[in-house]
Amino acid sequence: MKAIVHINPRSGVLDPQGQAVAGALKHLGFAGVLGARQGKVIELDLADIDAEQAREQVTKMCEQLLANTVIEDYSVQIEP
Amino acid sequence: MKAIVHINPRSGVLDPQGQAVAGALKHLGFAGVLGARQGKVIELDLADIDAEQAREQVTKMCEQLLANTVIEDYSVQIEP
Repeated sequence: MKAIVHINPRSGVLDPQGQAVAGALKHLGFAGVLGARQGKVIELDLADIDAEQAREQVTKMCEQLLANTVIEDYSVQIEP
Repeated sequence: MKAIVHINPRSGVLDPQGQAVAGALKHLGFAGVLGARQGKVIELDLADIDAEQAREQVTKMCEQLLANTVIEDYSVQIEP
């Protein structure tokens, strides 16, 4: 079973990585870039368990390790 | 207009970030984690241009800056 976790900076929180990307793109001549935000995606291979249990486990992983919930939002997607 | 770029390590290429995540999760007691891969997502705000033009521009951005095409794959998704 696979779980896909999307972790993004909370809206309103400063995103220095995204700002660096937007700045670099403008420097390269891409004038149409108004802004950028950068997040991460973690794809987890999980031993076969129930989808509901998997979601619970992965949510725990996010809270404990994967996301910094003060400044980041996460979403969990379970795939069979 | 929005563009969403997904950048992931090519399959077969070593992914030290993913390995670190998988190792840390196992250490925390999540024994069901068989593996992890970590990629990134960049959300770009673009000035209003044609969707086809936008895709072309963003593909250029990926080739020039956003992705390291030796070890990373990217995909571009354009949203109105």
